[in-house]
Amino acid sequence: MPLVVVGSVALDSVETPAESRDDVLGGSAVYFSYAASYFTNVKLVGVVGDDWPAEHTELLNRRQIDTSGLHVVPDGKTFRWRGKYMPNMNDRETLEVHLNVFETFDPVLPDEYRRSKFLFLANGSPTVQMKVLDQMVAPTLTVADTMDLWINIQRDELMQLFKRIDGLVLNDSEAKLLTDDENLVRAGHKVRAMGPNFVVIKKGEHGAMFFSEHETYVMPAFPTPDVVDPTGAGDSFAGGMMGYLAEQDKFDPKTLKESLAYGTLVASFNVEDFSLDRMKQIERADINQRMEEYRQMLSF
Amino acid sequence: MPLVVVGSVALDSVETPAESRDDVLGGSAVYFSYAASYFTNVKLVGVVGDDWPAEHTELLNRRQIDTSGLHVVPDGKTFRWRGKYMPNMNDRETLEVHLNVFETFDPVLPDEYRRSKFLFLANGSPTVQMKVLDQMVAPTLTVADTMDLWINIQRDELMQLFKRIDGLVLNDSEAKLLTDDENLVRAGHKVRAMGPNFVVIKKGEHGAMFFSEHETYVMPAFPTPDVVDPTGAGDSFAGGMMGYLAEQDKFDPKTLKESLAYGTLVASFNVEDFSLDRMKQIERADINQRMEEYRQMLSF
Repeated sequence: MPLVVVGSVALDSVETPAESRDDVLGGSAVYFSYAASYFTNVKLVGVVGDDWPAEHTELLNRRQIDTSGLHVVPDGKTFRWRGKYMPNMNDRETLEVHLNVFETFDPVLPDEYRRSKFLFLANGSPTVQMKVLDQMVAPTLTVADTMDLWINIQRDELMQLFKRIDGLVLNDSEAKLLTDDENLVRAGHKVRAMGPNFVVIKKGEHGAMFFSEHETYVMPAFPTPDVVDPTGAGDSFAGGMMGYLAEQDKFDPKTLKESLAYGTLVASFNVEDFSLDRMKQIERADINQRMEEYRQMLSF
Repeated sequence: MPLVVVGSVALDSVETPAESRDDVLGGSAVYFSYAASYFTNVKLVGVVGDDWPAEHTELLNRRQIDTSGLHVVPDGKTFRWRGKYMPNMNDRETLEVHLNVFETFDPVLPDEYRRSKFLFLANGSPTVQMKVLDQMVAPTLTVADTMDLWINIQRDELMQLFKRIDGLVLNDSEAKLLTDDENLVRAGHKVRAMGPNFVVIKKGEHGAMFFSEHETYVMPAFPTPDVVDPTGAGDSFAGGMMGYLAEQDKFDPKTLKESLAYGTLVASFNVEDFSLDRMKQIERADINQRMEEYRQMLSF
């Protein structure tokens, strides 16, 4: 089943304690799309300026990612982010943000996209996320991401969004901020009570937690010693998860749990190099092989 | 198989954001012993003053914990610790420490203890830990805990200890301090290279990691919403782990992995109330039931 993602497309500059990169391919919709492309056909919606290197689009297209929804603004400049990771590779500082064309991003979905059953609303304002939802014909599974900014400045709109989505993916600090509860188990269930049928809390190097009416579980991260650049880990996690669900064309509890494992593993590859560099080297078979190791690790 | 533990026996005063307790039963050897007592006979070595309430000893004896190695110093005062937990219930501040009789603790093991095959050296100076090792006849599995203090002030002695033990249990911040590596996967293997055959890194609410020559794995914590007091979580984890190994009388890779799961679950009960209050309410059957939920949680 095709999967639509709407989100940011960016040029990132990343500093880590060991190395740096300037203006490399990034953005939530890009990481998500690439991660999901191991499992299903992805249709990307985003916006860039005319400074966008054509090679990036070609890279996505080579993985069958449909970029007909990638809008290029003439004379516009692409969203740029610059960040620096602390030695623990988990905490980071944003040094510069230039929203550029992303500031007025008003996504219009191509007709063909609107009939998709699977939709992921990557991080963006809940107002924009709802505008996308308005354009969909009859999605069967809609999952959204959000961030602290929207929790702080568009809480009412976020609450409206929560009533319209099936699942929400957010990170641990955002779940705590949203619920004012420091216990992630309680926080997860409180977020679920706000509307979504299920909630996934991403904990970075500590894995992810899942909450539905009848299930609460934790999936540890795959223990890779090679964490080079964590940028896009959350988006590639969501991409692996949603890609697998769209491939299976179902989202019963068993499939959802498997999808979290796939998300975990794609993210574990993604952090092993800058930008999409590690993902570019792998195929589905590599993910499957790591899945065997992961299953082995969790069985006793 | 009987299991010997040497460590602190204390009266703790604990402040959490919700509630406080004064002078309640605590100490590494106490939490460890009680946790291990669900699985095997425990022989405790420790020291207290004559202010020590007899009821605490009776409580331990009711669980078949041998306290003949608990030395009572006439006119001495028992070790006291006062601490305060931050709202996240993970970070804590030590407000007061009165080592009292523990300061000059020079453990002498009863003859019967010395022939035990299983030994746990709870947190203490490596010098004292090695003095205990010297008294043992032929232990088959010796596991030690340590803490930042000894890493900072007795590093050489710690390195000597590491060459004499089979396993080391320490927490994540200690592993980073010891290896100067922020990546826990790398840190775990670096600690193992210092001597122990296997290393367990405790990550609190995020579970535990295991490192041996051929295995690296993560076990998530059991997601309990009721974290009342995390004091003793690490010691009850170690107690559940070592207790199970002593019960099984083996420590092959499969049994070790199971033991980490049991440690995880006993610790998850322990944090659900102050002092030993939650553990006092449970039996082995409750641990087994939670084990079923835990296995279910990790299978997909």
